[in-house]
Amino acid sequence: MTHSELILREEYDIEFILIETSHPGNIGACARAIKNMGFSKLGLVNPKKFPCDEAYHRSKGAKDILDNANIYKSLDEGLSKATLVFGTSARERTIPWPASYTHLIDKDMVKNIKDRNNKICILFGREDSGLSNDELQKCHMHLRIPCSEKYSSLNISHAVQIISYEFRNLIMQENSIELKSDVPLSTDKDNEYLLEHLDKVLIDLDFYDQNSSRQVQARLKRLVKKAKPDKLEVGILRGFLTKIEEMLNK
Amino acid sequence: MTHSELILREEYDIEFILIETSHPGNIGACARAIKNMGFSKLGLVNPKKFPCDEAYHRSKGAKDILDNANIYKSLDEGLSKATLVFGTSARERTIPWPASYTHLIDKDMVKNIKDRNNKICILFGREDSGLSNDELQKCHMHLRIPCSEKYSSLNISHAVQIISYEFRNLIMQENSIELKSDVPLSTDKDNEYLLEHLDKVLIDLDFYDQNSSRQVQARLKRLVKKAKPDKLEVGILRGFLTKIEEMLNK
Repeated sequence: MTHSELILREEYDIEFILIETSHPGNIGACARAIKNMGFSKLGLVNPKKFPCDEAYHRSKGAKDILDNANIYKSLDEGLSKATLVFGTSARERTIPWPASYTHLIDKDMVKNIKDRNNKICILFGREDSGLSNDELQKCHMHLRIPCSEKYSSLNISHAVQIISYEFRNLIMQENSIELKSDVPLSTDKDNEYLLEHLDKVLIDLDFYDQNSSRQVQARLKRLVKKAKPDKLEVGILRGFLTKIEEMLNK
Repeated sequence: MTHSELILREEYDIEFILIETSHPGNIGACARAIKNMGFSKLGLVNPKKFPCDEAYHRSKGAKDILDNANIYKSLDEGLSKATLVFGTSARERTIPWPASYTHLIDKDMVKNIKDRNNKICILFGREDSGLSNDELQKCHMHLRIPCSEKYSSLNISHAVQIISYEFRNLIMQENSIELKSDVPLSTDKDNEYLLEHLDKVLIDLDFYDQNSSRQVQARLKRLVKKAKPDKLEVGILRGFLTKIEEMLNK
């Protein structure tokens, strides 16, 4: 496990709290979603049916998250040690509250989220009616998932997936890993030589007709720029051109 | 409906293609996820069981997405008009491919995604084994969802949810003057024919040695995907290949 992954698991205290969830399958799917994103704390306030086989079945490899879930009799019990509380809400509410779209959380709040002294709780409401006004008013901030105006009702485990994904990204930001090619990229010079070689072969093949040669050259140049070939790819292409030359000289 | 929401629905052609999905419930959950994010096109390549009550049950308010789903007998059929193909993959592969984490897609690729001339397909693999190498090699770019190294297997509908969420956010971002090509982009079929033609010429030229032909083929395929040639560029390249054939047959 990388260093940053360990930090996420051991140094951050972030709990996903589901309130009065009706379908145990959803609880299992939420457990899987948070474990996929490297989190481990699940809280359940008065779940309708839990523990339950269906929850375990849907959790797949996240059975440990269900085993260790905190079961609360009230939300206040769940929030007793919380220092920073988020609520998720689709609808606009009558009392405006500090709110942010999940992908536009501002820097100050990100600083709060990354402060390891916080105990963070993120609340998810009932499948049919969401969070009550009273519950929403226990939050420091409401998080809104951008979605279609025509159909804005997300499955609860999908809402948990998006929020846990964003929180993971916010926390891991500084430590992001680069995807590397297995071969170094070609230099500008490599590409010039490649294009010269190609030009020579095209002349030898009588490919150009006189009017369009500059057009064709420009388009081939652009194509190479777009492709950004690595050194091995340039090697393959030049090997190909050499083969053609050998054939022509036979 | 706001103006930008209308643009997303009517001016963009983005299809989410699920390959050989086993569980119809997952198909329904995927339909709901994409409709929640304002998309409407679902493609199914050889689904194990579809149409099916369970799929409709899990789709909730997205039954129209299932009614209008495209059913394909092969992935090639599904991609015949595609100009930009993404694949989702968790594992690292032996041949590295252009790849990006979903939250770190670079500006050039975002420009491509926002180009309304593109027909975009996003591929999701089987629940147990994901996408095959052959399927991954049909993609211009692989998208990787950042997730826990300890447990990286997301439910397919949750992967669809995250990708559709990111694509919505990218497209709805205010901005940008779009750069249009002067020539239509090539389709997946154009590129397949180009690669077949190239393969034939390489065989005729005795270019492959036996050990590396598959490696070379994969790398050339990747190079074409990276370059995203337009129809004129494909024409130039095929003209070049035809010239070589003529020379060989002299």
